[in-house]
Amino acid sequence: MSKVKIPATMTVAVLNAYSGADALSIEQRPVPTPGRNQVLVKVAYAPINPSDLATLTGYYGFKNPTPMVPGGEGSGEVVAAGPGVMANYFLGKRVVCTGWGTGGGIWSEYVVKSVKGGVLSLSKSLSLEQGAMSFINPLTASAFIDITKRGGHKSIALTAAASSVGQMVNRLGRKEGIQIVNVVRRDAQVDLLKAQGANTVLNSNETGFEQELHDACHQMNTRIAFDAVAGQMTGQLLKAMPQNSRVTVFSALSREAVQVSPGILIFENKGIDSFWLGPWIGEQGILKTMSLWKRAQKQIPSDLKSEIRKIYPLNEVKEAIRDYTKQMTGGKMLLRMS
Amino acid sequence: MSKVKIPATMTVAVLNAYSGADALSIEQRPVPTPGRNQVLVKVAYAPINPSDLATLTGYYGFKNPTPMVPGGEGSGEVVAAGPGVMANYFLGKRVVCTGWGTGGGIWSEYVVKSVKGGVLSLSKSLSLEQGAMSFINPLTASAFIDITKRGGHKSIALTAAASSVGQMVNRLGRKEGIQIVNVVRRDAQVDLLKAQGANTVLNSNETGFEQELHDACHQMNTRIAFDAVAGQMTGQLLKAMPQNSRVTVFSALSREAVQVSPGILIFENKGIDSFWLGPWIGEQGILKTMSLWKRAQKQIPSDLKSEIRKIYPLNEVKEAIRDYTKQMTGGKMLLRMS
Repeated sequence: MSKVKIPATMTVAVLNAYSGADALSIEQRPVPTPGRNQVLVKVAYAPINPSDLATLTGYYGFKNPTPMVPGGEGSGEVVAAGPGVMANYFLGKRVVCTGWGTGGGIWSEYVVKSVKGGVLSLSKSLSLEQGAMSFINPLTASAFIDITKRGGHKSIALTAAASSVGQMVNRLGRKEGIQIVNVVRRDAQVDLLKAQGANTVLNSNETGFEQELHDACHQMNTRIAFDAVAGQMTGQLLKAMPQNSRVTVFSALSREAVQVSPGILIFENKGIDSFWLGPWIGEQGILKTMSLWKRAQKQIPSDLKSEIRKIYPLNEVKEAIRDYTKQMTGGKMLLRMS
Repeated sequence: MSKVKIPATMTVAVLNAYSGADALSIEQRPVPTPGRNQVLVKVAYAPINPSDLATLTGYYGFKNPTPMVPGGEGSGEVVAAGPGVMANYFLGKRVVCTGWGTGGGIWSEYVVKSVKGGVLSLSKSLSLEQGAMSFINPLTASAFIDITKRGGHKSIALTAAASSVGQMVNRLGRKEGIQIVNVVRRDAQVDLLKAQGANTVLNSNETGFEQELHDACHQMNTRIAFDAVAGQMTGQLLKAMPQNSRVTVFSALSREAVQVSPGILIFENKGIDSFWLGPWIGEQGILKTMSLWKRAQKQIPSDLKSEIRKIYPLNEVKEAIRDYTKQMTGGKMLLRMS
């Protein structure tokens, strides 16, 4: 075991019902003890991601019984290890935790995580702040580029393109020579992406949007779209793209049912599939995942960097969520655990 | 050229606007002359298919300028051949015509068709009545079984299951040991399919339908559905099926937009694709297509048989369509050309 002094209790954000941020409370709980092949992580920072918001309302794919601890990723230091060689290896190391697997979410001063997928070594060159956001968005963006290249595509369409993950996809895509048809909802987001070097940025609230989307997708032969919005947007994308296209839905910011004309599906050979990071990683196998992870860690300071808008202490989690929900682009909100 | 006496003019059904059966008129037109690699077919019979109804309202994937001649398939005899060895080979033969390619639709006393895909030899053992319906539905049903087997599926779900193509899929599926979750809209259709030996037939208008569909699809591990309805049905199917499922939309009898929860797509790894016979055949290559066609011809008297409800002369096409639209199951309407 470690020499770090571990307190008996810790501060935890607890979701008491799947009814949103108002159902969160700050509680004191006993610090858990790691079992075999498990480590105890003293959490430093955790971001608020769109998938966390989906968790709070019960929209997300995992729905443990309440009360539950949310938080999909975070950074910290391993301060205790249960029995097992791997657990011992991580002792004293700075790590990135994922919300999947043993121990639930990260919005907690301490978490127990399995060494089999629950913790990953954080590169020495990265701060704990950047490390906290180095898993979900960076690997999602890397996955999109991977899927794009494997499919032989030279162009993609991307909705909610000014989001953290959207900006990452733009930076990675530019390096790979992939043309991106960016779709956003506000003029400020058009300006943001254009200032970062994006060539094609369309505002879906402007008149003429559908025609512009059609023209851009035909000009660049864009036959794959990554859609974070769902609802009407999925159908608009499918309609705009050339024959033999597909939309990959990876989030549902609109919270509305995907709507698409069956004629477009049938007579233009189009389809809809989906992306969810956890299962996608599971499919890649351990070697591919480690290679993606290592490359992503190297790119965190540049192409896969997340801007930080504000850091809130954990006990102000409700305020942080309110602040984030008001405007989901323009930098991440981080929770500081102690 | 043939010795058959060919008149100067012929009776043709003409669609004058994409506004449905009321925009049809019966006209006299000059009989066309076949060019190189073309034949002139004296049409015997043509069925009214759902895809013909979609054509009349402009919903179908091909939309030639009006006035146009509808009719997706039919049977007849080759009475004249243009220059070319293949065209000459067909002279005097009984053939099946498809609506694709040169010459437009089949609802006409005579049609010119290309020998490259526009005509296929009709098996000697088949009547012209059965031959008229031996392409679209039989090959669609054969394709579904082919797709199912290639995907390693042991069970499928099927909507509009009491249709001609639905009944064919049931008969073929039973021989292949494929379990079918049939979905229909009326009790009489439940009875019809059960009388034909179907085990699982659900009425989507019954209360408890969604739960029954869920239970059936989970019990049989049904992970592929062929959906002729679209609208809400596509989402109901996706919701009911186990993880890693997909719905293949092949028609849109509801004429409503496909609606599906994005959470079901993302968190259950489900997707939507589509099937359209023409392009599917194009992808199979000539050898596979000829093998499918030969097998289908052998099965027309049994598994791929279509019931005939009524035969109408071409000049009563509007009445035939009205009759068919009232009830689309219970046997096909055939048009007799002369």
